[in-house]
Amino acid sequence: MLLNETAERIRTMEIRGAGRIARAAVEALAGYADTLDATDLAAFRSGMQEAAETLLATRPTAVSLPNAVHAVMAPLSAADSLPEARDAVRRRADAFVTSSLHAVERIADIGARHISDGDTVLTHCNSEAALACILEAHRQGKDLTVYATEVRPRNQGHLTIRALDDAGIRTSFIIDSAVRSIMNRITLVVVGADAITVNGAVVNKIGTAQIALAAHEARTNVVVAAETYKFAPRTVLGELIEIEERSPAEVLPEEIARTLKHVTVRNPAFDVTPAEYVDLIVTEKGAIPPELAYTIIREYLGWNIEDFQRQLVLDHRNQD
Amino acid sequence: MLLNETAERIRTMEIRGAGRIARAAVEALAGYADTLDATDLAAFRSGMQEAAETLLATRPTAVSLPNAVHAVMAPLSAADSLPEARDAVRRRADAFVTSSLHAVERIADIGARHISDGDTVLTHCNSEAALACILEAHRQGKDLTVYATEVRPRNQGHLTIRALDDAGIRTSFIIDSAVRSIMNRITLVVVGADAITVNGAVVNKIGTAQIALAAHEARTNVVVAAETYKFAPRTVLGELIEIEERSPAEVLPEEIARTLKHVTVRNPAFDVTPAEYVDLIVTEKGAIPPELAYTIIREYLGWNIEDFQRQLVLDHRNQD
Amino acid sequence: MLLNETAERIRTMEIRGAGRIARAAVEALAGYADTLDATDLAAFRSGMQEAAETLLATRPTAVSLPNAVHAVMAPLSAADSLPEARDAVRRRADAFVTSSLHAVERIADIGARHISDGDTVLTHCNSEAALACILEAHRQGKDLTVYATEVRPRNQGHLTIRALDDAGIRTSFIIDSAVRSIMNRITLVVVGADAITVNGAVVNKIGTAQIALAAHEARTNVVVAAETYKFAPRTVLGELIEIEERSPAEVLPEEIARTLKHVTVRNPAFDVTPAEYVDLIVTEKGAIPPELAYTIIREYLGWNIEDFQRQLVLDHRNQD
Amino acid sequence: MLLNETAERIRTMEIRGAGRIARAAVEALAGYADTLDATDLAAFRSGMQEAAETLLATRPTAVSLPNAVHAVMAPLSAADSLPEARDAVRRRADAFVTSSLHAVERIADIGARHISDGDTVLTHCNSEAALACILEAHRQGKDLTVYATEVRPRNQGHLTIRALDDAGIRTSFIIDSAVRSIMNRITLVVVGADAITVNGAVVNKIGTAQIALAAHEARTNVVVAAETYKFAPRTVLGELIEIEERSPAEVLPEEIARTLKHVTVRNPAFDVTPAEYVDLIVTEKGAIPPELAYTIIREYLGWNIEDFQRQLVLDHRNQD
Amino acid sequence: MLLNETAERIRTMEIRGAGRIARAAVEALAGYADTLDATDLAAFRSGMQEAAETLLATRPTAVSLPNAVHAVMAPLSAADSLPEARDAVRRRADAFVTSSLHAVERIADIGARHISDGDTVLTHCNSEAALACILEAHRQGKDLTVYATEVRPRNQGHLTIRALDDAGIRTSFIIDSAVRSIMNRITLVVVGADAITVNGAVVNKIGTAQIALAAHEARTNVVVAAETYKFAPRTVLGELIEIEERSPAEVLPEEIARTLKHVTVRNPAFDVTPAEYVDLIVTEKGAIPPELAYTIIREYLGWNIEDFQRQLVLDHRNQD
Amino acid sequence: MLLNETAERIRTMEIRGAGRIARAAVEALAGYADTLDATDLAAFRSGMQEAAETLLATRPTAVSLPNAVHAVMAPLSAADSLPEARDAVRRRADAFVTSSLHAVERIADIGARHISDGDTVLTHCNSEAALACILEAHRQGKDLTVYATEVRPRNQGHLTIRALDDAGIRTSFIIDSAVRSIMNRITLVVVGADAITVNGAVVNKIGTAQIALAAHEARTNVVVAAETYKFAPRTVLGELIEIEERSPAEVLPEEIARTLKHVTVRNPAFDVTPAEYVDLIVTEKGAIPPELAYTIIREYLGWNIEDFQRQLVLDHRNQD
Repeated sequence: MLLNETAERIRTMEIRGAGRIARAAVEALAGYADTLDATDLAAFRSGMQEAAETLLATRPTAVSLPNAVHAVMAPLSAADSLPEARDAVRRRADAFVTSSLHAVERIADIGARHISDGDTVLTHCNSEAALACILEAHRQGKDLTVYATEVRPRNQGHLTIRALDDAGIRTSFIIDSAVRSIMNRITLVVVGADAITVNGAVVNKIGTAQIALAAHEARTNVVVAAETYKFAPRTVLGELIEIEERSPAEVLPEEIARTLKHVTVRNPAFDVTPAEYVDLIVTEKGAIPPELAYTIIREYLGWNIEDFQRQLVLDHRNQD
Repeated sequence: MLLNETAERIRTMEIRGAGRIARAAVEALAGYADTLDATDLAAFRSGMQEAAETLLATRPTAVSLPNAVHAVMAPLSAADSLPEARDAVRRRADAFVTSSLHAVERIADIGARHISDGDTVLTHCNSEAALACILEAHRQGKDLTVYATEVRPRNQGHLTIRALDDAGIRTSFIIDSAVRSIMNRITLVVVGADAITVNGAVVNKIGTAQIALAAHEARTNVVVAAETYKFAPRTVLGELIEIEERSPAEVLPEEIARTLKHVTVRNPAFDVTPAEYVDLIVTEKGAIPPELAYTIIREYLGWNIEDFQRQLVLDHRNQD
Repeated sequence: MLLNETAERIRTMEIRGAGRIARAAVEALAGYADTLDATDLAAFRSGMQEAAETLLATRPTAVSLPNAVHAVMAPLSAADSLPEARDAVRRRADAFVTSSLHAVERIADIGARHISDGDTVLTHCNSEAALACILEAHRQGKDLTVYATEVRPRNQGHLTIRALDDAGIRTSFIIDSAVRSIMNRITLVVVGADAITVNGAVVNKIGTAQIALAAHEARTNVVVAAETYKFAPRTVLGELIEIEERSPAEVLPEEIARTLKHVTVRNPAFDVTPAEYVDLIVTEKGAIPPELAYTIIREYLGWNIEDFQRQLVLDHRNQD
Repeated sequence: MLLNETAERIRTMEIRGAGRIARAAVEALAGYADTLDATDLAAFRSGMQEAAETLLATRPTAVSLPNAVHAVMAPLSAADSLPEARDAVRRRADAFVTSSLHAVERIADIGARHISDGDTVLTHCNSEAALACILEAHRQGKDLTVYATEVRPRNQGHLTIRALDDAGIRTSFIIDSAVRSIMNRITLVVVGADAITVNGAVVNKIGTAQIALAAHEARTNVVVAAETYKFAPRTVLGELIEIEERSPAEVLPEEIARTLKHVTVRNPAFDVTPAEYVDLIVTEKGAIPPELAYTIIREYLGWNIEDFQRQLVLDHRNQD
Repeated sequence: MLLNETAERIRTMEIRGAGRIARAAVEALAGYADTLDATDLAAFRSGMQEAAETLLATRPTAVSLPNAVHAVMAPLSAADSLPEARDAVRRRADAFVTSSLHAVERIADIGARHISDGDTVLTHCNSEAALACILEAHRQGKDLTVYATEVRPRNQGHLTIRALDDAGIRTSFIIDSAVRSIMNRITLVVVGADAITVNGAVVNKIGTAQIALAAHEARTNVVVAAETYKFAPRTVLGELIEIEERSPAEVLPEEIARTLKHVTVRNPAFDVTPAEYVDLIVTEKGAIPPELAYTIIREYLGWNIEDFQRQLVLDHRNQD
Repeated sequence: MLLNETAERIRTMEIRGAGRIARAAVEALAGYADTLDATDLAAFRSGMQEAAETLLATRPTAVSLPNAVHAVMAPLSAADSLPEARDAVRRRADAFVTSSLHAVERIADIGARHISDGDTVLTHCNSEAALACILEAHRQGKDLTVYATEVRPRNQGHLTIRALDDAGIRTSFIIDSAVRSIMNRITLVVVGADAITVNGAVVNKIGTAQIALAAHEARTNVVVAAETYKFAPRTVLGELIEIEERSPAEVLPEEIARTLKHVTVRNPAFDVTPAEYVDLIVTEKGAIPPELAYTIIREYLGWNIEDFQRQLVLDHRNQD
């Protein structure tokens, strides 16, 4: 059955990337709704809820997943009849997928306006949304120079400079440690995000916080390009974003590590940039300052206070 | 002949490292003085001057070289007779070599006092003097944790963790980009220096300035361990420290670079940490705040104002 | 009669504390509505308005009072009939009281998530909400160390360390002046609030601003635990929070003060921490960055723009 | 015909000033709606749209113009009949004009509360709203000292000190360069705004950013007084505020400029103060922190997400 | 015998205060030299050295003690005969005592010039030197307001306001926590010092660092008044100033402490203000920026590089 | 007689400019020494002292004057005979004049090294030394862009752009208020100084402090070009630099001022830039960080501690 199949593919990371996970989950839910054999509205609701929970359990730390599921499930409680409920699920799913598919394009439109002719842009890692802004600005004929970092330990910078080179953009490639030494030549920093918390902190590839700090020190603006489903609703409830720690072998070859008894490799994949070092977050719904993350979560992701209150009470009970 | 041989070995980088270059130059000059066939004091001075210039020309950007040569040559002008001059050269050379050989040991004694029991120390690159402070503190029985960085692109961090491991010190190994994300656990940063300018700026391995900035942001002290011959006298005359740019191939394999038409690799080997991010510089003559670099240059390296004035006039003429 | 009795007990500070004042006022209004002998809706409204004003006049600077009164009175204007109005008052009152009674519990649930295993938490004064977060985190099995300040001149810190000791939490007790000297050991600051202004400034026990400044200097996060009724709606209209100045005798014994002709004791009870030093405000409705105070005032306290506009015009007339 | 006449007078700057432009546009649209000869709702809408575009084209960079036009046009799409539509336009136009006319008065009421007895206020340029706050505080009997700047190159400070002198307020007049040297005597900075962006940056008379920076350095609060129609909706779409560059002759007499071959005069009329240096923006709808600019644009200026999305798609198509 | 008696009185803190300890030690050494029965210069030197060590051992952390002893002992090594040595000791002792006795007077002369007519000065604790500056400025007819802190836990502020009151100076008395809340009224901070390290950090009464931080935040200058013998020479060798931890009973009555099983009282007597928050240190030899502490140690306290080098080697041996 | 004539010409500002005043005073003293009819050394000393005081009284706030007089008078106390004294005066005078005449040239040599090919330099006012650095860098073939400010109220910027234009340097001319708005394009700030205090604060043309603050905010280096005789020795004794307040008419035409009863014009000619915003001071003796001002005063201006101590005692007596 499709729902379980999708769930499995998300769990095994066959489906990966915030956008793809979100759209797959939404489509799986919509497909499930179409075929769900329910005698009445209550049965439909309970069937859908079970399906939603199956999906949510696959990747508990993926930020886009609860946002996607929530988008589809939210109208269920308001529906007055089974056909209306089924219909609402379908319509919400279609709207979510469409919006998601166009999100990067919209972000590029908005973000490109923050890039001026003659700018020297620094980017880090290989964010689709951040790159889209730069490529769009270039496409509009703006003369740009881009500095791209290597991004140890997995060298995502190699993908970035390839994309920039393909577009014919004048690019400088530097190691991650060289950021502060070239910061005075940079006129704008553009990066992506893996998650954004309720107080506007940006969780992104390790090294981003250091870049934002150096940009702040030099009065250089930092723009974060992020689809709205990167905003993490459960941070409203105080939940912290868990920072994934990856394999030591990415950083130090095992044959070396094995010979070092007192040495531990720490390999956090992300870091947290505080809101005060971010000038603007560009989403597909418009640009906002990071302090307005809460508004995105409420207005565009559709989480309302009752959702949160219910969850809080639930969490509280579970802990006891 | 020994002098030319030494000069050649410095030029070809067979002799390398600030301390080794300095000592080799000093010994070459002393040996030259012993055997220089001069009829009178004037001839001796002029012969020595020529030898000094031969050595200085080998590595124009090595900071320790002019300091070493100056230490030996300075007493020449005050000498009243040929034997006195010869003798002065020999005594100064011996004193310089002895002091230089003990410098790291003295720095370790002083620096170790700034490391407290229970500290979590961050170090970068593979500075002999910085490591000596940490190892000495460990030897004294202080319980330490050390974070060491990878140091792209040449991975000097591998040498550092090897040394720490050999000493049995609990060590965490991180990529350069992870510095800010672990900074709140660090209680002290200890790094070395390649050169120190008259206004207390520290030229050191690329990445140091970023670390010092993150330490400053978190109110963590930064200690720089540096032999006095790292202080750059010509910065008093406004000369800037030239930042070496190394081979692109260290950063990006040539077979990749070749396929990227619009991409340039920038590979600066050092960066500049401003004095405001450095709490203390530990030298073999004692600890000083970075603002007192000038005092080191004057009092311990023996450059006096007449040396500078003479040089200024000379430089001025040469430019016209 | 109950309303006047409650008003009197609030005025004489027999009823004190932001939460208790709020709930007492709400219940007094609801009780008054139940028994108010009104012939029609207009009479009911005017009677209720009079009652509301009686309560508001008791403690003009108590922030929770207008929020409580407003919560109950807001639906009056929309009601179409007397029974509907009476009913609305009762329902709003019940909802307010219930929410208020659970507020600290909800804040503790959310706030505890910001406290991690191994944290060293600093708190100041004796805030019920702040303590609840710490105690909840401890209850969840997190290993914590707490630093608590003395809180001159009334030594509320004694209450705090008693509560922490009762819970079996490892606690250090320090004088207020020692905060900066121990800040580098602190991993999180958690304090309460007496009032929060529209631009996110936190009015709290004198000394809080100093602590937040020292935390900011050391890149340590500051979390403020505050029920939503602490948010001050009239600051939207530019009204400043009045800082209470307490008796000099709290600070200097009168028998000493009497002998000092040129000495005045200043004894402000609160100070103002700017939003830039606060990372998050935890309310019973969720966590928000301080810049979103306005959203709390609008969405959760129910003040809308017409309320403000009407008040502005009224204020303007009164001043002329 | 009136609409074209108004459009012409706006284009030629016969009508100038953000408020006057906005009200003239609104009245022109309302007048046009009254007389527009339309057979059905569709025709009415399309006629109005054309009129709106005529007005918008007159001063593409005037921030208040799209806000005014939008206020009147927004209800058109919701109207169900021609009379209803005509009526809605009229009502919205009246409401806009009334609110606009009272805006400065309301701002003065709110802003004056932030000025305390004994304050020393610094103001820059000649902002009607900022001055209104100061004059209102003075009218309320608060004892004030005001520092006013000269405001090169057009000396608007002369108008300001005239107004303050007329009101009998003790005033000091300084050159623009003297701001930092007197900042420690200032207890509050009050300035106006020409435009406010979605991330709370304040575009105002050149020199404002420097003043705000010096105020921030000295922990002096900065209050910006601005009507809501100064908030720039298209910055949500990433559009940058264009900084007008005025005639060189304002700065350097042409007879001098002519003799200088290598000298260019740069004369930007405005600069951009980042949100972090602004404590509060006082609007006629209440005071907010700058980070809430987006909320003003959404809630008070009535721009909703569909407006923006439609515009984005439109912009995207136009670029291709 | 007088030397041992003095040593005993210093050890038991009968003699206390940096100045009194220093002068007592100097006079004891001079008296000892007068009566020391030595047959030759070598015996005299060795006898004096023993006496010096007796004194140094009494209070190992008192900064003025080694400075005083060093002042008297330094000429011994240069003396050529026993009478010359005895005489040198006597002359150095007399000079030290005279200079020390006039030190506060000289500091007052210099410091008072930094206090301007109309200033509002904040002081902390009860520093003789800091108060002398304020009293001298008042004596010169400058109109001053002084804010003095309570200084928990031993309330030295009571002594300070008594002294200010006696002088007829308008004084406000505040608790330590109120410093930031009144900082914007302060135009100058004047405090004393217990010790000053080689990098210009000021060790002073707990709370000073917090005050200096708040002053820095508000761009208010901080002047430290300190006799030269407060500069700590062994910090050149990396030695840290030990921060005395006083009795818990000063902070929390034992009968309360006894009932709290999980509560520990921390009572550090001093804290460390970094050089960057200090504008000027006023000594009896002139005013200097804190970064020049090393120069004071070298030029006025007479420690030369050989003293340090010898000590370093000694320390090194002792550790092995 | 020549001495009185020179004194008169300095007093009437016929002789003006720090360098010209200094040299005129030195030459007058030397001439006076040549012809002074003294029977013995004591008489010569006393005659010279009188002459020195005559000169010092002419412009009590001119910083270069006491430095010049001191340079010539210092050797008098060490001289053993009348001819030796006369000779010493003459030699010191000649050395001072020679050094002074070459000072700007030496400063240009040193300062130009801090200006790199491709730099965009900002300068303020019309400092001979600052301009010399820029012109020398240009002469060396470096490609420069210069931004020069207008410098209200006396428009010294007009002189500066004339000089830059004559040299063929690409120059932008801006009003003083525009500094922050163009700061991100600036790579180096170079300004002069009127006086430098013992803690490295730079007294210079009003507006300099604002520029340095904006440069610091943007991580742009600030270089101050200043002859050594600009360092103010009496600031060691706590003396503050008096900031001259010039005629109101420079700022506001009298015919306007006359009509404004409540308006006062404040026209300070200089402001004070703290050392933390200055990276380097370039003098003719070499470049130093601002914190080393004291070293310049001691080593190059020849003020020793006895001079200061004597002066202190004298000042103290005079005040009583």
